[in-house]
Amino acid sequence: LQPFCAAVDWGTTNLRVWLLSPDGAVLGTRRGPEGLLSITDRGFAGVLETHLSELGATADLPVVICGMAGARTGWVEAPYVETPAKFDALAARAVRVAEAKREVFILPGICQRANGAPDVMRGEETQLLGASLAGAGDGLFCLPGTHSKWARVEASAVTGFSTFMTGELFELLRSHSVLAQFASASRGPLEQEPAFGEAIRSVLADPRNAFGRLFAIRAAALLDNEGELAAARLSGLLIGAEIAAAIRERSTSEIRLVASGPLAGAYSAALKIAGYAPSLLDPETLAIRGLFKAARMLWPANSARTNVA
Amino acid sequence: LQPFCAAVDWGTTNLRVWLLSPDGAVLGTRRGPEGLLSITDRGFAGVLETHLSELGATADLPVVICGMAGARTGWVEAPYVETPAKFDALAARAVRVAEAKREVFILPGICQRANGAPDVMRGEETQLLGASLAGAGDGLFCLPGTHSKWARVEASAVTGFSTFMTGELFELLRSHSVLAQFASASRGPLEQEPAFGEAIRSVLADPRNAFGRLFAIRAAALLDNEGELAAARLSGLLIGAEIAAAIRERSTSEIRLVASGPLAGAYSAALKIAGYAPSLLDPETLAIRGLFKAARMLWPANSARTNVA
Repeated sequence: LQPFCAAVDWGTTNLRVWLLSPDGAVLGTRRGPEGLLSITDRGFAGVLETHLSELGATADLPVVICGMAGARTGWVEAPYVETPAKFDALAARAVRVAEAKREVFILPGICQRANGAPDVMRGEETQLLGASLAGAGDGLFCLPGTHSKWARVEASAVTGFSTFMTGELFELLRSHSVLAQFASASRGPLEQEPAFGEAIRSVLADPRNAFGRLFAIRAAALLDNEGELAAARLSGLLIGAEIAAAIRERSTSEIRLVASGPLAGAYSAALKIAGYAPSLLDPETLAIRGLFKAARMLWPANSARTNVA
Repeated sequence: LQPFCAAVDWGTTNLRVWLLSPDGAVLGTRRGPEGLLSITDRGFAGVLETHLSELGATADLPVVICGMAGARTGWVEAPYVETPAKFDALAARAVRVAEAKREVFILPGICQRANGAPDVMRGEETQLLGASLAGAGDGLFCLPGTHSKWARVEASAVTGFSTFMTGELFELLRSHSVLAQFASASRGPLEQEPAFGEAIRSVLADPRNAFGRLFAIRAAALLDNEGELAAARLSGLLIGAEIAAAIRERSTSEIRLVASGPLAGAYSAALKIAGYAPSLLDPETLAIRGLFKAARMLWPANSARTNVA
């Protein structure tokens, strides 16, 4: 089977490259540590060509990229599409990389300027496009991570979103704050400890005091020898604060959780404690689907030709 | 004038020693970097005797200490007094240091176990005792810092308090997070920038979303070149979240702000923006007064004898 295109999710700390068939199947995969922060001498073009060569891609195979490669500090800037951001606009406003010998397009991120809540995303919008393709339709999406995103999708557009620095705060507080003495120890999935759920419930009951609960983690460790509960409490507190802020209306019918691995476990548990029954979607699968859908919009001729042949 | 006692505020990163007259006047002052974290070979006794010797204290001058020297990891543990904590209990439950050749007492801290809000303080309770002596009476006290304390004082007792990791969060986020690119720059008092007040007002209007506003600081820097506002926004956001959580009832008539230097400026401005007219008290003055009042309870005979002589 001849590949239709190569698809790349190029992030801050790593990249993934897939060869995709005309119907979107994955024909080959490469992962590399050459994220935005580690691009040096070879530059973006050199890194990309090396991975494509390893995958056996022909010299004329087109490439579609999402993620931080399109940031101002990336390869070529792909300016943000503003909310409400139609999914079609991601392909329509993709930026061609002039220096590349083959056809290489970088998809834009999305920005939000409305309601005094400026926000940006690069990469997650392609996963949301992938979910749209998969028929997941409208709804509220939660994409947890270092910087968790909550996005509302309506009528094939991202109409609004919010970012929470939950993952980064957890690492900073767990490793570098006065809580580190107790919270840095790790013992399996935190969401399996009762303290995780207790912390979530306490924040949901009184969300304006989320910051005020941090030090209580240390106080309980000192007063009641509850140091071993510190990491689960910290995780529950931060995820609970994120959920309390992200979900304002209890009428929110369904939440689509885009996560895998430990994050999927922690956020699934947290959302259930908060009274929701999230459906779980795999972020890598959605990224591939989103890149493929954008590629079909960029190169309908290739696709039609291949399909007919 | 013969000193009545030596008073020591022994913190985590430094200590201060004062010689006090029978009426509480300061006859001599020493400051040193030998906080709890840096005590090594000489130990607490050696450090204390060196400072007392430099001040010309006689070998029988008694010493009263507050702060982290009484922590479990300090010189001698002075177990917490639980809320509601009568100020009289601070002297009554002071712990004598057996290894010291002179009379040395360490005042306890205060702990709170009620209402699912465990909390601890060591040092601030002595400032509150000092405010009590100064006739400041009952009320709500704000003691900002690395770990800000808000304490309610009623009928010569600390009836409840809350700790906020505001100062530590500010330093972590400003220096070590994705916000550091913009927020690490400093240009004079942050509270003088309009962005500081705007951040406070936005958090007070919607306190459950305090965490959710952090990333917007970065987004505004990327979208609108507002990077130079990042530090003021971060400070306003964190202090605003602290105020929103600490002051639940708008009926709170008066707030006594125990602060000096930059913290006094920032918190005065923040509380005024929130609609309060705080009265400002100097923390060092209160610490000296509190230690003196405890000393008078520990050694009434000395005091009477000296006064009579």
